[in-house]
Amino acid sequence: MITTPQQDNAASAYMAAVDLGSNSFHMVIARIVQGDIQLLHREKQKVQLAEGLNDDLVLSEEAIERGLTVLRQFADTLQPFAPQSVRVIATYTLRRAKNAATFLRRAKTLFPFPIEVISGQEEARFIYQGVAHFEHFDGKRLVMDIGGGSTEFAIGEGSQPLRLASRNMGCVSYAKTHFGAGKISSRRFQRAIVQAEQELEPIVSSFRASGWQQAVGTSGTIKTIRDIVVGLGWSQGPLELTQLLQLKDYLQKFDSCDELQLTGLTEDRKLLICSGLSILIAAFQMLQIEQLVYVDAALREGVLYEMTDRLQHLDIREQSIQSLVQRYAIDQAQAERVKQTALQLLAQVKDSWQLTDEAALLLGFAATVYEIGLQINSSGVQKHSAYILQNANLPGFNQEQQQLLACLVRFHRRKIRADEIPYFSLYELPLVINLLVLLRLAVLLNQKRRDEFLPELQASARVQSLQLQLPLSWLQQQTVLAADLQQEQKSLKKIAFKLDIPALQDLNDAQLNQDAV
Amino acid sequence: MITTPQQDNAASAYMAAVDLGSNSFHMVIARIVQGDIQLLHREKQKVQLAEGLNDDLVLSEEAIERGLTVLRQFADTLQPFAPQSVRVIATYTLRRAKNAATFLRRAKTLFPFPIEVISGQEEARFIYQGVAHFEHFDGKRLVMDIGGGSTEFAIGEGSQPLRLASRNMGCVSYAKTHFGAGKISSRRFQRAIVQAEQELEPIVSSFRASGWQQAVGTSGTIKTIRDIVVGLGWSQGPLELTQLLQLKDYLQKFDSCDELQLTGLTEDRKLLICSGLSILIAAFQMLQIEQLVYVDAALREGVLYEMTDRLQHLDIREQSIQSLVQRYAIDQAQAERVKQTALQLLAQVKDSWQLTDEAALLLGFAATVYEIGLQINSSGVQKHSAYILQNANLPGFNQEQQQLLACLVRFHRRKIRADEIPYFSLYELPLVINLLVLLRLAVLLNQKRRDEFLPELQASARVQSLQLQLPLSWLQQQTVLAADLQQEQKSLKKIAFKLDIPALQDLNDAQLNQDAV
Repeated sequence: MITTPQQDNAASAYMAAVDLGSNSFHMVIARIVQGDIQLLHREKQKVQLAEGLNDDLVLSEEAIERGLTVLRQFADTLQPFAPQSVRVIATYTLRRAKNAATFLRRAKTLFPFPIEVISGQEEARFIYQGVAHFEHFDGKRLVMDIGGGSTEFAIGEGSQPLRLASRNMGCVSYAKTHFGAGKISSRRFQRAIVQAEQELEPIVSSFRASGWQQAVGTSGTIKTIRDIVVGLGWSQGPLELTQLLQLKDYLQKFDSCDELQLTGLTEDRKLLICSGLSILIAAFQMLQIEQLVYVDAALREGVLYEMTDRLQHLDIREQSIQSLVQRYAIDQAQAERVKQTALQLLAQVKDSWQLTDEAALLLGFAATVYEIGLQINSSGVQKHSAYILQNANLPGFNQEQQQLLACLVRFHRRKIRADEIPYFSLYELPLVINLLVLLRLAVLLNQKRRDEFLPELQASARVQSLQLQLPLSWLQQQTVLAADLQQEQKSLKKIAFKLDIPALQDLNDAQLNQDAV
Repeated sequence: MITTPQQDNAASAYMAAVDLGSNSFHMVIARIVQGDIQLLHREKQKVQLAEGLNDDLVLSEEAIERGLTVLRQFADTLQPFAPQSVRVIATYTLRRAKNAATFLRRAKTLFPFPIEVISGQEEARFIYQGVAHFEHFDGKRLVMDIGGGSTEFAIGEGSQPLRLASRNMGCVSYAKTHFGAGKISSRRFQRAIVQAEQELEPIVSSFRASGWQQAVGTSGTIKTIRDIVVGLGWSQGPLELTQLLQLKDYLQKFDSCDELQLTGLTEDRKLLICSGLSILIAAFQMLQIEQLVYVDAALREGVLYEMTDRLQHLDIREQSIQSLVQRYAIDQAQAERVKQTALQLLAQVKDSWQLTDEAALLLGFAATVYEIGLQINSSGVQKHSAYILQNANLPGFNQEQQQLLACLVRFHRRKIRADEIPYFSLYELPLVINLLVLLRLAVLLNQKRRDEFLPELQASARVQSLQLQLPLSWLQQQTVLAADLQQEQKSLKKIAFKLDIPALQDLNDAQLNQDAV
């Protein structure tokens, strides 16, 4: 699977994780040596993407340009890497920007690796994984990461995250809102802290109820604050609320960030220190954190660890889907039937349609959960299933994978509204349509919900068409199914897809002959 | 509660149920004598509302007029009745018509009773209740009712429905599609039957898995078919598939419905007999019904029985809400806190805002389930809660009650999008806003999820304004809550509602003085 030119033997492999953050873009390159990760190279470029996001959540042309420039540089470094040994994750700003698709479309032309936009909860999960793998801790651990646009929180035990949260507050966005043009005042601090506290209110009771034995901070903001506090001689390392309030009092004496001269405070952090500190103080106060230690791990390390897991065929998405099956009490026998039929059909058209293993995996997931909406109502189940999948927290899925799942399930029966199929940067429309056809057929053929009902299925495919062979004698017994298949031909024709079923034609001919007699 | 002039003593009371069906409008008037229902008067008017529904689901002006004419007559008969002793239920056509609001608005001007549009599942439930109360049966019973636009199915035991389904196929709509201008042919029958079978396919496996010991049919269509079959001497009463197929063979010999002359077939049923028979045959074949007995009970009787239950303060809606609480594992302690606060506030503004007991009940329901969407995701919970409530099957709720619940929950926090509040025929906008304000305040005040956290609340209200008294000393300790309340004032101001909190003003004044010192 790993095919970098540097690869010498199966025991070692190179891989890279790229994190398109709201403040900086990061890249880490690592080598896997007997299952362990050796970090070889780290690169950080300040982009301040979040700074270019206006109140209407439109990303400015300048910010897009800054991002693309860095991506071009990263592309150069990553040139020898095969696509599957690089994962590129985008967070807050590209998650929120209404014109994120513009960025992604343009990025495609100069950066040959798929960019995966992830949810805030997924971001928190990666950060937690980064920390959990970085150093072991017995007991529950709270992890906090202050990003440019959002701040992530996680509580977990070992490698198992228990609670994940992402709040829309970050050092770049709060600097813009509360410390505009680098101005400092106690009133500004107060407003920033209260707003951060309001933002935290909804997660406070569940996080405190869960509790933890150790609190860990990651991110440049927390590192900077730690460095300053250590530099001032107030602490050996662990941060406490009194030190943070002391630092706030100290900073308040200045009118502007420009004037700040502190050991540990680099030039590019000056404009972000007050906002970052406000968020940290709010978190300490609301969550009642006693002490926080800084750990030099982050999202990108979490991504790397998950890549090694996938190399060992541990795909956390399987777990996420299984957890949905349990939580929503999905009829597993039916899901299994539909999945088997879908994958059986897929196997026969895989080459013609150039379907990847990943496509098969996603089709299998869709077939497993297509009826999840029954929990809400059987009437309009396709809409309810799609709604749940679109909005659920699905660890391991990036946003487009989740959207694809929702889209397939949305149109697993009834009318296909082509205009409601979203734009995917990772998936071409014909692929989406092909997977949809396979899922629909699999559902339709299993509508009787019976094992050993279906005859042997033979399928072959070409561009925008699929031929399905069914024994005529069998189809003659299935009048409802035959009518449904005929209906399906019409539905697919509307999206310019030809479903050819010779047995159905024979059946109609026989019917006409009979009528003529 | 019952205030008809005829009322003589507390042991007897008059009430009426009106059913605005897709084929006919029905009215029944009954008297409750010591808990039992005595039917006094039945009226039926053929309206054929469904005939006026076109393919785009727009109801024609002619059909609206026909409906309103009958409503005017019913209004005359019902003139002595108090609003709460009449329930008016509308089904398929008004459920589906895109311009149903036009009908409802016009109906309001000439018919003084609220018209409740109900879901198909709710329709099935009422029909089941009508049959269950009409005659007792030990064991499971399948009930089927062929309406003008939809056909309802229910399986239940005693007064407990176990499965409910409504399919969009009815004797009026199928007559239009398959037997246009009263034409008959074997091909037409075949097409109608196959389409009905396709329509039934999704419910077949669950209904057959449930099983039943007795199959019962209601509705004019089934009565007519029973009468014909008995008239032809083929049966003593119970219907079997062979008789239905025999009747189909008999009818196929004619080219047009006009030519039909059969004992039991009234003039106004001639155009509907082939479509109704097709649906019945499809049901027999798909569900494998062996024998079906006709019972002279229907939706309107079910409605009457439920009215007597409500008189005894048995409101099935309580049960529906409790079942959601269980199924979605709602945090009951928090729901109870929010409900208590909401009702406590309501009690103080009830008179000023002229809130009814029903309004209080609905507010209590909303407070109980506002967090139901947590099952899907905590992020955006207000949207998920609303989605579930909008789409769930909620026995006892008419469509507008359900929409109101969803609407209140949709805006229980964050921005209120006034343009997304739907039009209600049963509720004036100010009432919706008032309930929303109470729910939002109750949620906000309980954001800490703690018992014994709140001080005594004092509220008073006027048109579009509410004053909330909070102890200043208490509020001073609650900086986040104070900021949230201030935010809430702004949110409500945007919908022209004034939230006045004197303590908040005092707090701000104190703050300003402190800053000035």
